[in-house]
Amino acid sequence: MTAKNAFYAQSGGVTAVINASACGVIEAVRRHPGRIANVYAGRNGIIGALTEDLIDTNQESDVDIAALRHTPSGAFGSCRYKLKGLDANKREYERLIEVFKAHNIGYFFYNGGGDSADTCFKVSQLSETMGYPVQAIHVPKTVDNDLPITDNCPGFGSVAKYIATSTLEASFDVHSMAKTSTKIFVIEVMGRHAGWIAAAGALVADHNIPVITLFPEIKFDQDAFLKAVKNNVENYGYSTVVVSEGCRRPNGKFLAEQGLKDAFGHAQLGGAAPVVANMIKQALGYKYHWAVADYLQRAARHLASKTDVDQAYAVGQKAVELALAGHNSVMPTVVRTSSRPYIWEIGHAPLSQVANVEKFMPRDFITSDGYGITNLCREYLYPLIEGEDYPPFERGMPKYTTLKNIAVPRKLEEFSL
Amino acid sequence: MTAKNAFYAQSGGVTAVINASACGVIEAVRRHPGRIANVYAGRNGIIGALTEDLIDTNQESDVDIAALRHTPSGAFGSCRYKLKGLDANKREYERLIEVFKAHNIGYFFYNGGGDSADTCFKVSQLSETMGYPVQAIHVPKTVDNDLPITDNCPGFGSVAKYIATSTLEASFDVHSMAKTSTKIFVIEVMGRHAGWIAAAGALVADHNIPVITLFPEIKFDQDAFLKAVKNNVENYGYSTVVVSEGCRRPNGKFLAEQGLKDAFGHAQLGGAAPVVANMIKQALGYKYHWAVADYLQRAARHLASKTDVDQAYAVGQKAVELALAGHNSVMPTVVRTSSRPYIWEIGHAPLSQVANVEKFMPRDFITSDGYGITNLCREYLYPLIEGEDYPPFERGMPKYTTLKNIAVPRKLEEFSL
Repeated sequence: MTAKNAFYAQSGGVTAVINASACGVIEAVRRHPGRIANVYAGRNGIIGALTEDLIDTNQESDVDIAALRHTPSGAFGSCRYKLKGLDANKREYERLIEVFKAHNIGYFFYNGGGDSADTCFKVSQLSETMGYPVQAIHVPKTVDNDLPITDNCPGFGSVAKYIATSTLEASFDVHSMAKTSTKIFVIEVMGRHAGWIAAAGALVADHNIPVITLFPEIKFDQDAFLKAVKNNVENYGYSTVVVSEGCRRPNGKFLAEQGLKDAFGHAQLGGAAPVVANMIKQALGYKYHWAVADYLQRAARHLASKTDVDQAYAVGQKAVELALAGHNSVMPTVVRTSSRPYIWEIGHAPLSQVANVEKFMPRDFITSDGYGITNLCREYLYPLIEGEDYPPFERGMPKYTTLKNIAVPRKLEEFSL
Repeated sequence: MTAKNAFYAQSGGVTAVINASACGVIEAVRRHPGRIANVYAGRNGIIGALTEDLIDTNQESDVDIAALRHTPSGAFGSCRYKLKGLDANKREYERLIEVFKAHNIGYFFYNGGGDSADTCFKVSQLSETMGYPVQAIHVPKTVDNDLPITDNCPGFGSVAKYIATSTLEASFDVHSMAKTSTKIFVIEVMGRHAGWIAAAGALVADHNIPVITLFPEIKFDQDAFLKAVKNNVENYGYSTVVVSEGCRRPNGKFLAEQGLKDAFGHAQLGGAAPVVANMIKQALGYKYHWAVADYLQRAARHLASKTDVDQAYAVGQKAVELALAGHNSVMPTVVRTSSRPYIWEIGHAPLSQVANVEKFMPRDFITSDGYGITNLCREYLYPLIEGEDYPPFERGMPKYTTLKNIAVPRKLEEFSL
């Protein structure tokens, strides 16, 4: 029997370490010659499968594949594209099978977050629903850290380390300036509906920084918040504020939605940080600075957590091992067996329990006033940001790799999305 | 004759390496026992001198002083406070002399940018104008890199390295996402009226990133800009935009000034990045992300340039040597003697030629279309971002020092600012 090929794709928002998972998948396949013939990567995620735009990873050298481990972003391109259900869009599933057949693909490794787990789950059912045998393994990835079952999600530890460090550094800065100038520093962080990244900013409290953190899990109370800010400034001379992009007012609207209009009457979308900063200025008169780190935080491979890089690699490698052991419809998970010392291993969970479930901050990870984190949360977070894993530098800048990304020759007709 | 004391203070916006200059000053003094008795640091800059709020740096251990070299921000506090001219405010100069006399201060080391150089220059004239003998040396510091004479300013190299790296990382990210999602990434950078920091972002062009840079030195032309963005997206699938906070429209208004009103009719100040991003969205329809790094960029000691750290230390050390050699009213400067290989030494310049002069990007450092940098500029920039100098980490975060900052007992009446 000829060994089958594997399809690998990156999906959704990319991270500082998703390429480390790609590296884990490809290196694991290369370590088992004859078991899986080749890894075909989808150019731009599942789109690459649907349009038969496959990248021949065999054409990449071992050195370049190894360099993926320290290169942020998605080396093969990612996409935001969620497969509809089989009933709603049978055409796409038929196309997938057509492409899989044409390229002898028997393994489907999908590297993404919650939405992608759903796509991967649907593909894992193709054997049952459409009679095409394929083993689908979901490789977890999301800076939002909101996947269930796994103790944490690859991608999160690095953004957490970046936000903890950046919030610390900027807080030192505003502390220096506070006597005659800036008294408030607001940093807006990612995380969608979950406050995990914001919680990492709250770690600066352990460095004597007066910090107030606004979590999406806690309903925003403007009066209480302003009181807490005033209290910090009166006691410490300044305050740092970490605000999650997913923070909402009691009426359900995001803080960033302010009904702003520009000169032409167009609605203007800003971030939550300037909104919070202006709110403080108007109520309390304090001079402020604000930052929106946006992509900087999730792309910051230069400050990756070593724990995170190791785990991202490990889940990629484990995905291949699970496939070779005959598994389908599963996701490798990070299992924490001890916090002090931190010990982890890779387990796995059925995709049916992962798809479309979001994991939020537990209430007992947030202090009773809603503005800080508890020791339980600290114990959870610290191991995840532990360790540095610097990329190589050349001429003062990180030396990241760009693959050749040579296409596999097409065998089929075109397909319109 | 009893050795005199020195006064040292930090002024204006702080940087990732201004404490390395403080370290250079204090360690140089400690290396010359008997020549300068003690370094008294002003708590919050010149305010500390006026209010007789002096910090006794002799109470700090050698280990803590050495740790300043890897600690961002201003360890003694900074201020935004410019001394008026002697005619306009004789009272403050008399007070300074009173404090200097009371604490036997014969040396004045002032660590700041252009405005601070002016203050330092005025103090350096006290001997002539008020009959009090003091040697005033200005220690250069500004992320804006806009001081004259010196080849570059300590603080700039590190922010340049941070912006070059962050722009590279975020560009890799948007490149991954561009097929089905974000096509435009806009990053706003500091620099006041000078485009030096923006130029560092433009370095990503050397990594095959389609980048458009908006310099304050170049009048903003909206139509030409949008055409350039469209061109990038059509040819590369995406575009990175680096916009300097000091960028202005042809009418002289900052890009950030959009006449936005919130629900209550209050003027809303955003950054230039969201303005540029929205402009692109409205004209071309491309999905965007934007970041405003703000303090994150100038506080990012975790990614400091080794060249910058070394030079920041060296100008501090040199200030003491110049003082001991009898100089007054001078500033140590970085002198570049060769670009390839990069060789530098510390010289000095008269403060009269430094104060209140801003150095902008020369036109021949910017490409003819106004959106990129020339090889001349590259040759200037690369050596300044060269080398990594990571701080120690503990529990996943940088281990920065906080000094004891014990006050020198007061001898005088209170003084109101």
